[in-house]
Amino acid sequence: MATETPLLLTLDLVGVFAFALDGALTSIRAVRLDIVGVITLGMTTALGGGILRDVLIGDVPPATFRDWRFLAVAAAGGLVAFAFAAQLGRVTAAITVLDAVGLSLFAITGATKALASGVGPAQAVILGGVTAVGGGTLRDVLLGQVPTVLRSEVYAIPALAGATVAVAATRVGVYGVPAALAAAAVCFGIRMIGVRYDIDAPRPPGHDAPDAGGTGAAGRQ
Amino acid sequence: MATETPLLLTLDLVGVFAFALDGALTSIRAVRLDIVGVITLGMTTALGGGILRDVLIGDVPPATFRDWRFLAVAAAGGLVAFAFAAQLGRVTAAITVLDAVGLSLFAITGATKALASGVGPAQAVILGGVTAVGGGTLRDVLLGQVPTVLRSEVYAIPALAGATVAVAATRVGVYGVPAALAAAAVCFGIRMIGVRYDIDAPRPPGHDAPDAGGTGAAGRQ
Amino acid sequence: MATETPLLLTLDLVGVFAFALDGALTSIRAVRLDIVGVITLGMTTALGGGILRDVLIGDVPPATFRDWRFLAVAAAGGLVAFAFAAQLGRVTAAITVLDAVGLSLFAITGATKALASGVGPAQAVILGGVTAVGGGTLRDVLLGQVPTVLRSEVYAIPALAGATVAVAATRVGVYGVPAALAAAAVCFGIRMIGVRYDIDAPRPPGHDAPDAGGTGAAGRQ
Repeated sequence: MATETPLLLTLDLVGVFAFALDGALTSIRAVRLDIVGVITLGMTTALGGGILRDVLIGDVPPATFRDWRFLAVAAAGGLVAFAFAAQLGRVTAAITVLDAVGLSLFAITGATKALASGVGPAQAVILGGVTAVGGGTLRDVLLGQVPTVLRSEVYAIPALAGATVAVAATRVGVYGVPAALAAAAVCFGIRMIGVRYDIDAPRPPGHDAPDAGGTGAAGRQ
Repeated sequence: MATETPLLLTLDLVGVFAFALDGALTSIRAVRLDIVGVITLGMTTALGGGILRDVLIGDVPPATFRDWRFLAVAAAGGLVAFAFAAQLGRVTAAITVLDAVGLSLFAITGATKALASGVGPAQAVILGGVTAVGGGTLRDVLLGQVPTVLRSEVYAIPALAGATVAVAATRVGVYGVPAALAAAAVCFGIRMIGVRYDIDAPRPPGHDAPDAGGTGAAGRQ
Repeated sequence: MATETPLLLTLDLVGVFAFALDGALTSIRAVRLDIVGVITLGMTTALGGGILRDVLIGDVPPATFRDWRFLAVAAAGGLVAFAFAAQLGRVTAAITVLDAVGLSLFAITGATKALASGVGPAQAVILGGVTAVGGGTLRDVLLGQVPTVLRSEVYAIPALAGATVAVAATRVGVYGVPAALAAAAVCFGIRMIGVRYDIDAPRPPGHDAPDAGGTGAAGRQ
């Protein structure tokens, strides 16, 4: 999305594939779905965040919708998950890493594109976060679950941190591929530390509401 | 929507009424709702798919929102369902047929309008599908259920097939009312075969995730 | 939103704060969330309705998104709820009144802005209702619950009534701050009567579908 170089385009498509694969696998584990549901939820996970961002900044039809390569790669990710769900259950570590790559790239390209559309820096950071976590949120809503990103894990925070670095770099005039990759590295690093040490974001003091029903088996990796 | 002839407008309004009636009845059966909920969910089922399509192609305010006849017919469908829910439970076969008519018309008019807005053929087919199943999907999400279209039945596939025929006919230059009705007949035929023989779309191999809670009594029709 | 005078802007920001506070508290009571979830759901409750309206009338980026004061006040409401959830559980009556103030203001400013964008009067009334109840509906969907507004209580009806008064006043040419406040008073009055006498909107005859799971503890307020 908002890609300019072959490197960034390639990374972006890797992120789309990873999100589609991961989103479809998460969906298969959570709910009994047919092939339409698996591919739809894979594509929603991969493309939903960018579509939400583009609708909010008025760039319609959304960018990932105009470029058939994004649709094709997202559909391929869903189809691979549909066909090889059992085997892919053994490589979750690799998928978690790919998912973190997608998260990082989407946060940075989303924030950059939002800033270029003319919104303020705080709005650009929020839209970077929406780009990164919006697809997974839509998927969880379609699965009838409270989105994981709202409940636990360090997932939105690295996306917002990476988006903040990207926006700050642009504001001081040093943005370019190196700054974008540095911002993505910030997001990726925080996310991986969160995964490695199993950290959750803080919870409200003194409140122990029960977990929402049916989400036990369906957390994001 | 995107109607040009009195015949297509009439068929479109029949589809809106059928979707609103069916959507409101499905909602009443699934969850304890008040009159606001029943009419809102009937209108959402009938108009939601077209609104999603129009937001995605940037034609806002959405077409069904600009034309008061669509709002009035959708509200009437919800109101009839609210008042006569018990009696309508005895004519489900007729409602299933009407719903398939709505599905077919929405898939075809949605794909045609999307193509006319300038998106590519694959995107137009997807947007035809979104127009046809988007309203029911929004309704199911508001009812807290995994959308039926993602889980079972032949419902999205006929919509995508009909949209494909409509897009192909337009690309080879033979589009018009006869081609539109032929494309709608393809969708209607596949849907009715699916209903008649109780066919489900394929499921992922070797996966038997439990059904989502609370959806047992709430299947479409 | 669509604010013109310091008085209306102040009232609007009070409404945003009340909605964010109430939305975040409702969310904390319903589901085990982390700080990201609480603030996101508070901001969604406060800003979601206006964002939906602006997307539907094509005014993007949405107004509350362009003005950082709305974002800051909404985030502050969520943060206060996160920090003081236990203490705020003792002032629910005050929060209910603030919430009704927000409902009234959002319905009136939403309908007025929609009318000014060129849609018809029926559409403007509906968009006033969407502005007022859309944020809470999005929050309930993200919490995996059937939106309260669809199930019980007099909540959408006062919003639609207030929006109707505002639209009618504009059509007969008497709109201004006094008429806006009168329309808001109609909404506020009906809402408070509903709260005081615990009135529910009518339900479909002869239907007793079970309540959706998990919503028992999570009613509005």
